[in-house]
Amino acid sequence: MRFSKGHGTQNDFVVLPDPDGALDLTPERVAALCDRRRGLGADGVLRVVRWKALPGVGEPEPGVEWFMDYRNADGSIAEMCGNGVRVFARYLAAAGLVGEPEFTIGTRAGLRSVSFAGGDAVHGDVAVGMGPAVVGARSSARVGDKVYPGVAVDVGNPHLVCITGEPIAALDLTAAPDHDPDLFPNGVNVEFVSPLRDDAITMRVHERGVGETRSCGTGTVAAVVASLHHAGRAEGTVAVTTPGGRLRVTVTPDGTTLCGPAVLVAEGELSDEWWANPA
Amino acid sequence: MRFSKGHGTQNDFVVLPDPDGALDLTPERVAALCDRRRGLGADGVLRVVRWKALPGVGEPEPGVEWFMDYRNADGSIAEMCGNGVRVFARYLAAAGLVGEPEFTIGTRAGLRSVSFAGGDAVHGDVAVGMGPAVVGARSSARVGDKVYPGVAVDVGNPHLVCITGEPIAALDLTAAPDHDPDLFPNGVNVEFVSPLRDDAITMRVHERGVGETRSCGTGTVAAVVASLHHAGRAEGTVAVTTPGGRLRVTVTPDGTTLCGPAVLVAEGELSDEWWANPA
Repeated sequence: MRFSKGHGTQNDFVVLPDPDGALDLTPERVAALCDRRRGLGADGVLRVVRWKALPGVGEPEPGVEWFMDYRNADGSIAEMCGNGVRVFARYLAAAGLVGEPEFTIGTRAGLRSVSFAGGDAVHGDVAVGMGPAVVGARSSARVGDKVYPGVAVDVGNPHLVCITGEPIAALDLTAAPDHDPDLFPNGVNVEFVSPLRDDAITMRVHERGVGETRSCGTGTVAAVVASLHHAGRAEGTVAVTTPGGRLRVTVTPDGTTLCGPAVLVAEGELSDEWWANPA
Repeated sequence: MRFSKGHGTQNDFVVLPDPDGALDLTPERVAALCDRRRGLGADGVLRVVRWKALPGVGEPEPGVEWFMDYRNADGSIAEMCGNGVRVFARYLAAAGLVGEPEFTIGTRAGLRSVSFAGGDAVHGDVAVGMGPAVVGARSSARVGDKVYPGVAVDVGNPHLVCITGEPIAALDLTAAPDHDPDLFPNGVNVEFVSPLRDDAITMRVHERGVGETRSCGTGTVAAVVASLHHAGRAEGTVAVTTPGGRLRVTVTPDGTTLCGPAVLVAEGELSDEWWANPA
């Protein structure tokens, strides 16, 4: 069983090449792979499978060969991951599975267009179309005794973006920030963002069900859309510094694009014995 | 750059084969390798090097070919690791670098004898001679408002073993237990251990400078020696259940032996680009 390990702004993934969909990828195996001590360790698994070989995800779009079958570290199925798509795309290029500098990937959240910055598929940043992001109602998050005003942003998943003049680094995000359960009945990802300055922001994110993470692709998009909206702008390109690294988001009337690094750290082979019975 | 990844009772390691000592293993590279998001992720690195090829560790003992150059996750040099030696030995056997079911490894803490349970070098448990363990003064650890009586045990590094009838699983070990700084001027590893029953104990460990870990080789030895001592015994074999798995310690007048699993999860190759400049 071959694998690669990579990360995008320190959101890390085990990539499993399975072009013909032959792999029996049970939740237990995903959880064992992602376990950071008894397995390889990762935030999730990116299975690389031909769309036509993956049942239950609809008919392949013409011209779209590869599907990102993304799993969370606990083994559950997830729709999309903005940092994962970049690593997925870098893997496809490094493995010689795509030849063009721009192509489209199937995901459970729909099609995602990918391009390599400067046309360089092996180095440099990867840009991913993230679709529309819609600003919603005003709301707030509470951390300890303090209330932070914010705004809802829908990027396919729910976000609450709080712009604050306080030092972002000093916030205690060990517990989930309190939020309005009527506005966010299924929970919410909360971003704390510095005021937009010179088209740049700094942010930290608390992901629902996970805790604070070093980076979150959809959260980065939400933070930029909210920051531009706050400044009375509907378009722009903003640099975002997260604890895991730097990203860039472009907002146009057509949608949003997330651009950032994708690093392949290693590749190899799982022990047959371990894979048959992960210890 | 080849690597293997493995664990012993969920104490996990990156194994770097470097028989001729050609590798420039800087602290920065060790830290990047062990980083659980931007690297491979591990508690430490086990460099596999011929003793004669490693400067600064004395003359090789006759008949001892391999030296375990162990590094902590922060890049610092460590003397020994009871769980690491088992993974190191399993790697040597799996890679065909040793042929016998019993052999000796050089470490910075001295020689360590290794044997494979049932003579099987690829499956089953690995036993490692851990040298003498010396019971010292009575002392105590404090967790929150509670004081737990204990006893010092020296296994090359300092331990404080507290036998308690309280449920071990309920202890809050998020902070380091308080200890007597006069008795332990360089800090201490603290084990909380259930009373010896049917030659079995359960334990949790707080490692100095690290926090709670799922298992600790020398801590397991210290816990068994203290438990036997508490029962008025100087010898015996005791099964130890840690959060990371099960081990077995044998105490004789000649010293101690730690026996437990060693699992190789995967092997592969680091990206040249990443290794040259870990991102």
